[in-house]
Amino acid sequence: MSEREAQRPVRVTVWGENVHERRDEPVRALYPEGMHATIAAGLGRLLGDAAQVRTATLQEPEHGLTGDVLAGTDVLTWWGHAAHEEVDDAVVERLHAAVLGGMGLLVLHSGHLSKIFRRLLGTSCNLRWRNEGERELVWTVDPAHPIAAGVPQPIVIDAQEMYGEHFDIPAPDELVFVSSFAGGEVFRGGCSFFRGRGRIFYFSPGDQEYPVYHHPDVQRVLANAVRWAAPVGERGAATESPQSPLGWFEREAA
Amino acid sequence: MSEREAQRPVRVTVWGENVHERRDEPVRALYPEGMHATIAAGLGRLLGDAAQVRTATLQEPEHGLTGDVLAGTDVLTWWGHAAHEEVDDAVVERLHAAVLGGMGLLVLHSGHLSKIFRRLLGTSCNLRWRNEGERELVWTVDPAHPIAAGVPQPIVIDAQEMYGEHFDIPAPDELVFVSSFAGGEVFRGGCSFFRGRGRIFYFSPGDQEYPVYHHPDVQRVLANAVRWAAPVGERGAATESPQSPLGWFEREAA
Amino acid sequence: MSEREAQRPVRVTVWGENVHERRDEPVRALYPEGMHATIAAGLGRLLGDAAQVRTATLQEPEHGLTGDVLAGTDVLTWWGHAAHEEVDDAVVERLHAAVLGGMGLLVLHSGHLSKIFRRLLGTSCNLRWRNEGERELVWTVDPAHPIAAGVPQPIVIDAQEMYGEHFDIPAPDELVFVSSFAGGEVFRGGCSFFRGRGRIFYFSPGDQEYPVYHHPDVQRVLANAVRWAAPVGERGAATESPQSPLGWFEREAA
Amino acid sequence: MSEREAQRPVRVTVWGENVHERRDEPVRALYPEGMHATIAAGLGRLLGDAAQVRTATLQEPEHGLTGDVLAGTDVLTWWGHAAHEEVDDAVVERLHAAVLGGMGLLVLHSGHLSKIFRRLLGTSCNLRWRNEGERELVWTVDPAHPIAAGVPQPIVIDAQEMYGEHFDIPAPDELVFVSSFAGGEVFRGGCSFFRGRGRIFYFSPGDQEYPVYHHPDVQRVLANAVRWAAPVGERGAATESPQSPLGWFEREAA
Repeated sequence: MSEREAQRPVRVTVWGENVHERRDEPVRALYPEGMHATIAAGLGRLLGDAAQVRTATLQEPEHGLTGDVLAGTDVLTWWGHAAHEEVDDAVVERLHAAVLGGMGLLVLHSGHLSKIFRRLLGTSCNLRWRNEGERELVWTVDPAHPIAAGVPQPIVIDAQEMYGEHFDIPAPDELVFVSSFAGGEVFRGGCSFFRGRGRIFYFSPGDQEYPVYHHPDVQRVLANAVRWAAPVGERGAATESPQSPLGWFEREAA
Repeated sequence: MSEREAQRPVRVTVWGENVHERRDEPVRALYPEGMHATIAAGLGRLLGDAAQVRTATLQEPEHGLTGDVLAGTDVLTWWGHAAHEEVDDAVVERLHAAVLGGMGLLVLHSGHLSKIFRRLLGTSCNLRWRNEGERELVWTVDPAHPIAAGVPQPIVIDAQEMYGEHFDIPAPDELVFVSSFAGGEVFRGGCSFFRGRGRIFYFSPGDQEYPVYHHPDVQRVLANAVRWAAPVGERGAATESPQSPLGWFEREAA
Repeated sequence: MSEREAQRPVRVTVWGENVHERRDEPVRALYPEGMHATIAAGLGRLLGDAAQVRTATLQEPEHGLTGDVLAGTDVLTWWGHAAHEEVDDAVVERLHAAVLGGMGLLVLHSGHLSKIFRRLLGTSCNLRWRNEGERELVWTVDPAHPIAAGVPQPIVIDAQEMYGEHFDIPAPDELVFVSSFAGGEVFRGGCSFFRGRGRIFYFSPGDQEYPVYHHPDVQRVLANAVRWAAPVGERGAATESPQSPLGWFEREAA
Repeated sequence: MSEREAQRPVRVTVWGENVHERRDEPVRALYPEGMHATIAAGLGRLLGDAAQVRTATLQEPEHGLTGDVLAGTDVLTWWGHAAHEEVDDAVVERLHAAVLGGMGLLVLHSGHLSKIFRRLLGTSCNLRWRNEGERELVWTVDPAHPIAAGVPQPIVIDAQEMYGEHFDIPAPDELVFVSSFAGGEVFRGGCSFFRGRGRIFYFSPGDQEYPVYHHPDVQRVLANAVRWAAPVGERGAATESPQSPLGWFEREAA
């Protein structure tokens, strides 16, 4: 769709909180190099030359998200859970500005309570939950959406944490997936939001206790979402507040 | 909200196809006077003096929906299934004009394939289905919506026909309820649409083989929806195509 | 629409920054008792017994917005411009929680850059502007919306500050009014947003240098918006994050 | 965004009513080979190898829109005005099915009253109008939308027919452009709608009496819209109504 795609790969930064993987043995067993490494590998495999994928983690200076890194990032993916409050407010400001300026953002699973997601959406982003390893079915409700391309109806995830309604978000700009759980709950688990010049996609599967990011259909959704969230053309500046004297556009055109 | 409410009751016409009730013994056992009679009684009980409720059926002349009846109807409810094609096209045209002019419309269950619903929405309105009498849970995803007022989270309906995604409708203007079924499917079963000056609400529970319209929570949803769908102020005319000479509004204001 | 209306008046708090009125002679000439007093008087005149209207200003302790005041406020209106940064962050947090819990919020004109509006919307809320006292026309694009009831097409405001696109907000949940200006710009100046349990309406006319809040059609819009933004039923709590063990809703129902 | 783009060009059919051009001398002077020829040439120039563009007109058998033509069309553009009623209902049915199955549709100017547009949207699509050759300004309200890429803020069209609000359409899924006119009216003239698997874009500039389709910015919008409306992947079938026995998806996956 964009000229960019013809020119160069999408530059993806996969961000990982990287706490559970280091302290919880069962998580390390699933993701020995960290969840971010598995997510990045899945994107690399599916997107090939169409993407350049790197990772960054909470523990790096500035969480690995310096101004230079963000300037060179078309799409950022975000997984966090145990350490939302440890994310530096200055970095959150930088992320916020980057998204409004056009950087795509994929917020994963427990990232619903991250500072950046709540900052962008303005609501509590609270939800119902239960971690009993039950089956999640991810249903496509918008089959023509690019993020649903090549995704089975439904995606079957054998064991997952339950996330249920009410999910306190603004009405999504696009609702792509709705999940059901063995216990009966439903969840709007695949939602897009447009904010400033940026595209945001929230995708709920992905608790650290289950091998969700090894699931090929989940990987497919993430790869589709990276393509979809990449800015059209070059990254733009955020909207400013120009004082525009009478007739300004006639003079500009002349 | 509207001045109308202070002045007079909402005038409701409950329309019933009235075919299954007459030919299928199990349906007659559930609804001896017809599904429309049960729906109307529920509305009357919950809305009391705030509503005037009458019924109309397919078998009446002009299906009971003459121009006079529609002119005196603030909100019409529609249940049909076996005889969609027997609804006269001229009546459908009249209904369409009435909704665009501001008449509220509640479309129930299998009414998703009615001529009037498909005409208003423009899509196929097809969906996945299975009639095995399984449990349906109706989840509120918009708890501040007036139609969800006083409704439990979730509504539990012990036995229902399954309706599942993909449901081929335009993205609803408001998504209020999402159902899950024992078999695992999900369904956007409580949706509002604004068309012309009219408010439309689709509510999926209500197969004729189960006593759904006797369920107090279902009755509550329908009563809320009647209040919500009633036009603000007097019924307006549909938008026309005025030729408006330069300066028309300055002259009108003078 | 709500039971509340039948029971008691809508409790409105009109908040004014109250800076221009005290320091700028031309503004004081238009609004000798403050813009908030004029706005409150207009609401009182149009809503009568249906509303209880009080005012609060920046200069009061806690800006007049204590927890008790907010607990007793169904709808808050907000006008600010010169002193956005002087609004205490703790009060903004309280406002934010109140809106998510169901308090209605009307944000007026330059309030687009207030802390509370940007906090709720998550974007910069920047826009194009020019203050040359030109004619604004406010066009209704959603004539069936309750906020547009009784409003002429268009509202003519002889002199106003220009606000123009791009206006950096999320796509509104409902777009009710679009303005044009003599200089040619357009602006989405009447927008609703649903956040948490709260209803938010932004209405752009109202620069302090012009007698906009004395305009009867503007007063009508504000009165309609107060009715529309009032919570349905009692104010609810914001959504929390309940841990919900398997079968929780079956036990609750039992 | 889609794999299709990498594989083959977008197949575009530019449909023209072709009545004014043949009977009205001033229109013929502007568009000697028909408006469709000018529109097609603009698309060809801007899209180059990325598109294959052909034309079809009302006067051809089946209006040039046989099943084979539609099966080989990714995006159809539609300009009509004087002869909406002459479009055969069977062709409209075919178009409707094609859009629901994923064919993109660009509806231009007076095509707002075409059978296919009203059929897809379900409303009257009426609007206010005046043909006095006044200046139209097309403002981008969604600058990150692909259809707005490379488009100046605003587009200045020196002379055009006025189209004004209220425009009786469903709330657009995306609002991209809003126009103002010298006489003061505003119009939601750049709107997208998702219906079935198809993407629809309505763009209002383009009265036959003015050289609007020679305007480079208008040509840019149309070229962007063609890219945007092209289906992702292969054209799909419309949603059907599958009866899905309990456990169907477990058996399919096995």
